Amino acid sequence: MLHLKRIGIQTYGENVAFLSAKCPHYKAESFRNLYRVEIAGLGRRIMCTLNIVENGDLIDEHSLGLSSPAFDDLGLPAGTPITLNLAAPPRSLDAVRQKINGAELTPDVIGHIVEDIAAHRYSKIEIAAFLVACAAFMTETEVLALTRAMASVGQRLIWDMPIVVDKHCIGGVPGNRTSMIVVPIVAAHGLPIPKTSSRAITSPAGTADTMEVLANVDVVNDRMQEIVRAEKGCLVWGGRANLSPADDIMITIERPLGIDTPEQMVASILSKKYAAGSTHLLIDMPIGPSAKVRTQEQALRLRKLFEFIGGELGIVMKIVTTDGRQPVGRGIGPVLEARDVLHVLRNEKEAPPDLKERAVFLAGHVLEFDPSLTGGTGQRRARELLESGAAWDAMQRIIAAQGVQQTRFEIGPITREIYAGASGVVHSIDCYRIARIARLAGAPLTKGSGIDLLKKVGESVVQGEPLYRIHATLDADFAFATDMAKQDYGFIIK
Amino acid sequence: MLHLKRIGIQTYGENVAFLSAKCPHYKAESFRNLYRVEIAGLGRRIMCTLNIVENGDLIDEHSLGLSSPAFDDLGLPAGTPITLNLAAPPRSLDAVRQKINGAELTPDVIGHIVEDIAAHRYSKIEIAAFLVACAAFMTETEVLALTRAMASVGQRLIWDMPIVVDKHCIGGVPGNRTSMIVVPIVAAHGLPIPKTSSRAITSPAGTADTMEVLANVDVVNDRMQEIVRAEKGCLVWGGRANLSPADDIMITIERPLGIDTPEQMVASILSKKYAAGSTHLLIDMPIGPSAKVRTQEQALRLRKLFEFIGGELGIVMKIVTTDGRQPVGRGIGPVLEARDVLHVLRNEKEAPPDLKERAVFLAGHVLEFDPSLTGGTGQRRARELLESGAAWDAMQRIIAAQGVQQTRFEIGPITREIYAGASGVVHSIDCYRIARIARLAGAPLTKGSGIDLLKKVGESVVQGEPLYRIHATLDADFAFATDMAKQDYGFIIK
Repeated sequence: MLHLKRIGIQTYGENVAFLSAKCPHYKAESFRNLYRVEIAGLGRRIMCTLNIVENGDLIDEHSLGLSSPAFDDLGLPAGTPITLNLAAPPRSLDAVRQKINGAELTPDVIGHIVEDIAAHRYSKIEIAAFLVACAAFMTETEVLALTRAMASVGQRLIWDMPIVVDKHCIGGVPGNRTSMIVVPIVAAHGLPIPKTSSRAITSPAGTADTMEVLANVDVVNDRMQEIVRAEKGCLVWGGRANLSPADDIMITIERPLGIDTPEQMVASILSKKYAAGSTHLLIDMPIGPSAKVRTQEQALRLRKLFEFIGGELGIVMKIVTTDGRQPVGRGIGPVLEARDVLHVLRNEKEAPPDLKERAVFLAGHVLEFDPSLTGGTGQRRARELLESGAAWDAMQRIIAAQGVQQTRFEIGPITREIYAGASGVVHSIDCYRIARIARLAGAPLTKGSGIDLLKKVGESVVQGEPLYRIHATLDADFAFATDMAKQDYGFIIK
Repeated sequence: MLHLKRIGIQTYGENVAFLSAKCPHYKAESFRNLYRVEIAGLGRRIMCTLNIVENGDLIDEHSLGLSSPAFDDLGLPAGTPITLNLAAPPRSLDAVRQKINGAELTPDVIGHIVEDIAAHRYSKIEIAAFLVACAAFMTETEVLALTRAMASVGQRLIWDMPIVVDKHCIGGVPGNRTSMIVVPIVAAHGLPIPKTSSRAITSPAGTADTMEVLANVDVVNDRMQEIVRAEKGCLVWGGRANLSPADDIMITIERPLGIDTPEQMVASILSKKYAAGSTHLLIDMPIGPSAKVRTQEQALRLRKLFEFIGGELGIVMKIVTTDGRQPVGRGIGPVLEARDVLHVLRNEKEAPPDLKERAVFLAGHVLEFDPSLTGGTGQRRARELLESGAAWDAMQRIIAAQGVQQTRFEIGPITREIYAGASGVVHSIDCYRIARIARLAGAPLTKGSGIDLLKKVGESVVQGEPLYRIHATLDADFAFATDMAKQDYGFIIK
């Protein structure tokens, strides 16, 4: 018996246990470093990767340490007596080896893999191996099985409503915060749209990061369902909802590796939406040379896969393509994006027209899911709801219901303008480059950091005129971002 | 400026740095968890993965901790003032993403990837992604580039001798400790054979683990070269030599994932041998239903690849196939295997005939590399050197030169015999299963643990007769091994 201890180390995506090399009960040689172990106490158990600790400062020989997420997962108080067992490697790893060698996996086997990943039975490198092997090739049947398996692990939301709509953008275009405009428009119309969003992993802001500038986004499921019943919409962080938790784990490996195949994108998005109880789903697919989808051919392939998998899951799917050739709006980073969104919702003259028009376009498509609406009138209805202020009223009710943000976040005070190197017309803006600079500037973690675009595609510039302004909150971030912008500022002027 | 601290956590394959969340100089939000950072001090620098630590027990806000291997890598004393910088992701990761998507990589690009891996610029999941992507497909040109790149990072041994021979078994067959017999035979003949071996990663013993029962195997390069000049042979641990260090890192990811493609096997083995300065190399390729190579077709493909890559590197290659249908000798685990080896070298009646005959066969092939030997007489010469005691004399000189092992390791005292479930003839023995049971019993880390085979293929057994004996040193290991043997003992009796 060892005594449980919390070790305040964040180890995202992997539960880690720390055992003293001097521990007399579990001789450290037999419990070897980096082995998978099962920790059990008071009827609860979790799987961890074992790290052997040589010095006594971190952990004494009568204790077992768990990294913060593992400790929280196990849910037992510090000091609880616990036991340690070598965990046999999950059997489903044999199937991962087969997949690496090019095999097609059965739905059953895919189900076991997903269950094991969600239960933290895989180490990070094992998850990476599965994902990379899947990136090499997956059949449509495998994608369907993966999506179903991911959706069936974790919570599923049940709504006592005939239609529950949602919209999702596949991402890759900075500043594209249409959800925060579409949701209030659709809610103002009266169609239920419970929007759960992620925080950014490799981008400068996720919808949850930007909404958090205005409201609390950490809302438990019961409260979220109350809010949607009352206000028809919400904009909350999806991590609390425990929808497709395997996806949450897999995505922390996929994103830094840049794995973004159509198959994995579809499984990730649709498993979340299926678990969220969506009946109708609009997918926004931006196309552009530096976006995730670069050609019409890619878009077609992705659309077909969305339609097939969504159809099999019983979700009514609508896929639209949008312009992904440059960032949307002016601001990139949570506070700067929230500023643009508020300008649009309040019908202020500073509202970026591209953000507004895109939101109206998408909201119009979502409204067409309403059987009582005359076909083809969605766009007009969306514009009315936005321009009349009804959408802004709905947003204010949603913010109040989720809880107004108590912290006031300011735009990053350390700034530098980046100047055009030549005169001409802005020919293109590299979405990937701009996102990276904004992220180095501190977005999304320091919410006021990011980029404010001063020129967009098609506008004329004179050499030396500012193209955008970098905003940072910390000196170190500012230095990283300006260095990166100096190397290549991401604009092509012709 | 932070003060350097050693954190006694073993983090194989990945350098980890620990920073307090409260650190005022480097605000933890901008230095985010799991980011790659560069640590620099007194002109030295290393790359690490950053872990953010919440509590002050492990690390105070004015210090930066490094896991033991990272601390040793940096090579600066505790307390040294050091700085921390965000490291840009290595550029070669873009090529890994291309490889995931099926691209063929140029030699230059492969060179950058290998350099970055050896310099610890890749995280474990990034290395896993590269290896799994390579497992999907690699051209021969890519394999050659990978081998060359791996060999050219790290040390290369220079020998002032016209012929430097070596032998290598591709593995997969437990108990196959022929190197400890071949090396003294070849050394007794006078042909230089500097044998560097690995420790086991997923098998019950590597040659270095078994040799260590008799002698010190942790020998620096200069001393190893002295020993080979004087005694013509050595049997040392390769980890000290810094030959193909990228391989040492990659193998810690490949083995647990079970990645063992011909391409990666050839690159791993030949990069090490090229760096070790071998001019002539014998490859032992066991074939059997539970060995690494299962069919003649696989063996042919692997042989061709060895010949092509070895030829391009200027190494004279000879590839032989051996019987891989069952373990070799009786003992599996360092002490039990060393016992078998000594029986053979001392020409004792307990010597397992299969181990002896296989060693003579392989040594004969190595001796054929000697231009002064009449063609076809290698086997006879090898048998003479073994049976005359000349090989045993050579082995005693090698042991004395490396340093006699001061610890006396005993065969594991906790034992259980595993009994035949039926009467008949032993039809096959599952190498993989037996290795796994031996490993659970504690091999190689508790050196006396493992399995002692009492029956081999072709022998008659009566139901209830013992097939093998499990030896363990610790109760927990004993329980794991016997449980596994009860589920399936790995013998088929017909």
